[in-house]
Amino acid sequence: MVDYFSKAISRMIAELSSLPGIGEKSAQRLAFHILHMPEDRVERLAEAIVEARKNVRYCKTCQTLTDQEICPICSNPKRNHKLIMVVEDSRDLAAYEKTGEYQGVYHVLHGAISPMQGIGPDDIRLKELMTRLSSKEVEEVIVATNSSLEGETTAMYISRLVKPTGIKVSRIASGVPVGGDLEYIDEVTLLRALEGRTEL
Amino acid sequence: MVDYFSKAISRMIAELSSLPGIGEKSAQRLAFHILHMPEDRVERLAEAIVEARKNVRYCKTCQTLTDQEICPICSNPKRNHKLIMVVEDSRDLAAYEKTGEYQGVYHVLHGAISPMQGIGPDDIRLKELMTRLSSKEVEEVIVATNSSLEGETTAMYISRLVKPTGIKVSRIASGVPVGGDLEYIDEVTLLRALEGRTEL
Repeated sequence: MVDYFSKAISRMIAELSSLPGIGEKSAQRLAFHILHMPEDRVERLAEAIVEARKNVRYCKTCQTLTDQEICPICSNPKRNHKLIMVVEDSRDLAAYEKTGEYQGVYHVLHGAISPMQGIGPDDIRLKELMTRLSSKEVEEVIVATNSSLEGETTAMYISRLVKPTGIKVSRIASGVPVGGDLEYIDEVTLLRALEGRTEL
Repeated sequence: MVDYFSKAISRMIAELSSLPGIGEKSAQRLAFHILHMPEDRVERLAEAIVEARKNVRYCKTCQTLTDQEICPICSNPKRNHKLIMVVEDSRDLAAYEKTGEYQGVYHVLHGAISPMQGIGPDDIRLKELMTRLSSKEVEEVIVATNSSLEGETTAMYISRLVKPTGIKVSRIASGVPVGGDLEYIDEVTLLRALEGRTEL
């Protein structure tokens, strides 16, 4: 497509622009930045990508992406292993870790139930969650799937699966984001915030 | 920094977020996309990056980044080699190539004169331009540096260098972008557009 650059450069641009969120313009900008980088730094970048991909696997316990059999969180004895937060993917886990406050462990579903997209309960890591709940002493399952139709459907499904085991199931709150201006918030969120009001 | 991902994943995220325009969030999104890509596609991506960087060099004639001694444009006999468009970098060349209308060749300066940043005439590929002008039969030099302070300074400088040789020097027009709404255009551009008006 971009034959005015030479072949190798065009190929790099094509490969970069195949990544999500990187259009042709950004790919070009990245490519020229890389061409100006020291060669050893470029090799380090490429190696980091290949290495990470080669060694990636799912944590045997929580199913997050990691390069060990058991991820750093699951193998940390200081975490509260009786508290499991269920998230849709590893990035959601990262988001909660960044708060620095959550002391429990996680379970990564790698998706959410979506009849529209043909994703059923068997297509996400629910079986692994149930196995975990039956074999270990767990006190509470916090469902932190997204606040979308799929996320809510999945939350409902999990609650119905877990309740019979006697383990407590909770759902993170929906509402107005902190710092959010009511004026710009959609009605569904406003109603949720109203329903979920707490006494002061 | 992100120790809740495993080492290899954190390293990839760190390497990706060192690229321009890629913050930590985007790096994370890219990283997880890459982790889900087939291994051979990841290797192809990494190889394309390393190969391009390894083989990159400056075209002996126009100084653009390429992987051959002479770039595809300079070695194309169908192009008008008597018409040289001077641009700041290879991406500007790409922008003009995309119009599909320009038939001349280019000269890439790799920068612009900027006293503020300590970039003088000797720091950009001006010498190479003058050598080109003295050795080959050139009819016109079109200065297409950016419409910024640095770009204008460079344009002025080039015009003073080239004029004594008797070769025609021109500057691309400044004005209101096509489709641009006057209301949202800065005053300097509006004044430029007025000054550069042409008879209908």
